[in-house]
Amino acid sequence: VVVSNRGPISFAVDDSGALTTRRGGGGLVSTFGSALYGTGAMWFAGALSDADRLAAAKGAVDAEGYRVELLALDPDLYRGYYDVICNGTLWFVHHGLWDVPRRPRFDRHWWPAWDDYESVNRAFAERVAADAPDDAVVLVHDYHLCLVAGHLRDARPDLTVVHFHHTPFAGPDAMRLLPDRVGRRLLEGLAAHDACGFHDPRWRSAFQASCEAADVTAPTTFVAPAAVDVNSIEAVARSNDCAGALARLEAEVGDRMLIVRVDRMELSKNILRGFLAFDELLELHPDVRGRVVFGAFVYPSREGLAEYQAYRLEIENLVARVNARWATSDWTPILFEPDDDFPRSIAALRRYDVLLVNPVRDGLNLVAKEGAIINERDGVLALSRESGVAGELGGLALGVHPFDVSGTAEVLHRALTMSPADRVAHAAALRAASTARAPIDWFNDQLEAAERR
Amino acid sequence: VVVSNRGPISFAVDDSGALTTRRGGGGLVSTFGSALYGTGAMWFAGALSDADRLAAAKGAVDAEGYRVELLALDPDLYRGYYDVICNGTLWFVHHGLWDVPRRPRFDRHWWPAWDDYESVNRAFAERVAADAPDDAVVLVHDYHLCLVAGHLRDARPDLTVVHFHHTPFAGPDAMRLLPDRVGRRLLEGLAAHDACGFHDPRWRSAFQASCEAADVTAPTTFVAPAAVDVNSIEAVARSNDCAGALARLEAEVGDRMLIVRVDRMELSKNILRGFLAFDELLELHPDVRGRVVFGAFVYPSREGLAEYQAYRLEIENLVARVNARWATSDWTPILFEPDDDFPRSIAALRRYDVLLVNPVRDGLNLVAKEGAIINERDGVLALSRESGVAGELGGLALGVHPFDVSGTAEVLHRALTMSPADRVAHAAALRAASTARAPIDWFNDQLEAAERR
Repeated sequence: VVVSNRGPISFAVDDSGALTTRRGGGGLVSTFGSALYGTGAMWFAGALSDADRLAAAKGAVDAEGYRVELLALDPDLYRGYYDVICNGTLWFVHHGLWDVPRRPRFDRHWWPAWDDYESVNRAFAERVAADAPDDAVVLVHDYHLCLVAGHLRDARPDLTVVHFHHTPFAGPDAMRLLPDRVGRRLLEGLAAHDACGFHDPRWRSAFQASCEAADVTAPTTFVAPAAVDVNSIEAVARSNDCAGALARLEAEVGDRMLIVRVDRMELSKNILRGFLAFDELLELHPDVRGRVVFGAFVYPSREGLAEYQAYRLEIENLVARVNARWATSDWTPILFEPDDDFPRSIAALRRYDVLLVNPVRDGLNLVAKEGAIINERDGVLALSRESGVAGELGGLALGVHPFDVSGTAEVLHRALTMSPADRVAHAAALRAASTARAPIDWFNDQLEAAERR
Repeated sequence: VVVSNRGPISFAVDDSGALTTRRGGGGLVSTFGSALYGTGAMWFAGALSDADRLAAAKGAVDAEGYRVELLALDPDLYRGYYDVICNGTLWFVHHGLWDVPRRPRFDRHWWPAWDDYESVNRAFAERVAADAPDDAVVLVHDYHLCLVAGHLRDARPDLTVVHFHHTPFAGPDAMRLLPDRVGRRLLEGLAAHDACGFHDPRWRSAFQASCEAADVTAPTTFVAPAAVDVNSIEAVARSNDCAGALARLEAEVGDRMLIVRVDRMELSKNILRGFLAFDELLELHPDVRGRVVFGAFVYPSREGLAEYQAYRLEIENLVARVNARWATSDWTPILFEPDDDFPRSIAALRRYDVLLVNPVRDGLNLVAKEGAIINERDGVLALSRESGVAGELGGLALGVHPFDVSGTAEVLHRALTMSPADRVAHAAALRAASTARAPIDWFNDQLEAAERR
């Protein structure tokens, strides 16, 4: 049994008024890859759209290899749970994104949303308790659903419940930002699981330290970095859509070197400092002017939150400024692509000379692995030490300190001027490390954690 | 020997062109109080103004009971050291004030300022090395001068050098925001002392944890909270200036209850959430509308930094909004006093019914103790658990979670409605705890740390 906020399929209503399904967006279903396919797994998820709610009313659906049950939740309740608590609070605390003199504010508007979070978690738990098979292993995913296991403990002691936390985890100093009883509820909710998993040892240590500081007995923990589904991504890379996107990209870039980033326009991704570092690279290294393009394949995210709207505006202004400063009649330094076009992003990953992954903090970052796997030019990875994937790839990549703009500019220059022989060795080592694990390994790590119960 | 950025006296040029001295502003000289007076101590400090630089050119000066040597530093060098590094970087990292998606940025403008910090620290060390008496105990103060002892070690092994850090200290996660070699230099610089002191055990623990994470051997540490010079503050309270200010305040407040805050307009002081909590108090507790005034005695600070200008503007806008929402023909809810008027601030501390001290993080906070000592109405202290002084007073005060606006509003209501008998006991306990130590104890703790060398 899998439980997550976003399910593996989403529904739409076609022209004839009939419900159709398609594979859902978001990382979790692609991270499970084919591991769950055909296992008869049940997947409990929230109904995110009107069509989803229509489907939810009809009960469980067999589709895409899973048996899916969508929970229809009151939209107002869902908004408090999802926008205010999940995206506006828990995401911020685990990634350390708050402008502390101003945010967070736990005020009369916030507290009812916390009650919504409690209610949604309880609703998930009640549905799982009602419908999960006897003695099932239940894999609960991510910060949205920290309180499910606590409710299940009493109702269904036969179940084994494992949590996997996809984001970084806040250490004790960061957890102190949350109201005491909220922080304690979250930690106790996680501790009610038979085991809790994380992508990186740093996040596990932070969780343990936060438990210790709050006098909560930590549960069994495990570290299991997620992996790329190589077959699936290679299928996209071989697609006609991707070939067309690559041809268009080649026409734009020509024989110049290409730095690429592929990210949501997300506060934690450090997009501004990436462009500032590129600006500093062009200023301090005249040799690369006119010879390099920075392709930013960044797609909109969480546009309902004011912080994200402001961030996008700042990004666009900075791109305009850097381009205005350096562009020539035949060279635009930054190629800014703010559309969610997956084949085009994959084309960019095939073509890059340097892949910049510089988040201020990131649970894992699969783009770093995807790039290493499908890049066709022995490209160089410039990787933030604050990404979870630095645990697997950090020793092989060029390390980036995400706040050090000057240092990042120097890393980009080193990457652009690396010798062909060094690039071959660098890319081969990254490719090997990025394929060392498969989605089935990640899935099995969770099952093994359940078996150690 | 005392070494600090700001000295105990400052100079001015009078109408006749002659240099005159006056007691310097800032907390350190008042924190030492009379402890140093007449000990023949030498005090090395920076020349902060043109008049100070004139005085510096004339050599050491005996004034106000100290022998003062001011160091004339190039104004450009001083600006990089003071504005960019001390106030713009170290203050932010130790108080956790950064808006991480955007700041800090260690770029081509920042790195030369770091060199300035190194240069100024070296200049202080060279002057101390040249002029300090044999076998002297040198007390180096605060985050401005973390690198002095490292330079002194070689030049003057006869000296015993103790550091006292007046701010909170960044834990390992926060220290990771700094460039590696900068964080390491600061920790090694502090570790080069014979002992390092802090106001609160939390800051000492954070320092030790940061040393451990960076593989730096921590030096001997000690905890020594600073104390209020009771005689000095009572003299101000008895002054005619203070009496006049109190009379004017009484005329404005009348027989209403008075909540007071006395703070620099400083990002760490949490002034916005204080007003938001007051707004929520008025909304949720109609019983106190018209019956309470929030007197905010907040004075300008660091107006050369854009962050502080923006913060002041936000404060003023919020005050206007809350007053516009609630004011009646005969009641202005917030009395906003943005002038640096010490007797008036002391008058407010004599008069408050509730003192709000709600910083997001604070090295100590002497205002909490000062209020407890000179308040004349058995006033209630609402105290942030993130202030260093919570180590001494936290168990006696009403505790405030600085990010919990709703919780702060409830604490204010509890404070305003506390029974007279409880107020008497509350205020007496706080007064006793606030006078348990004197400046001489704090001074002696530093000397004892030196003797344990």
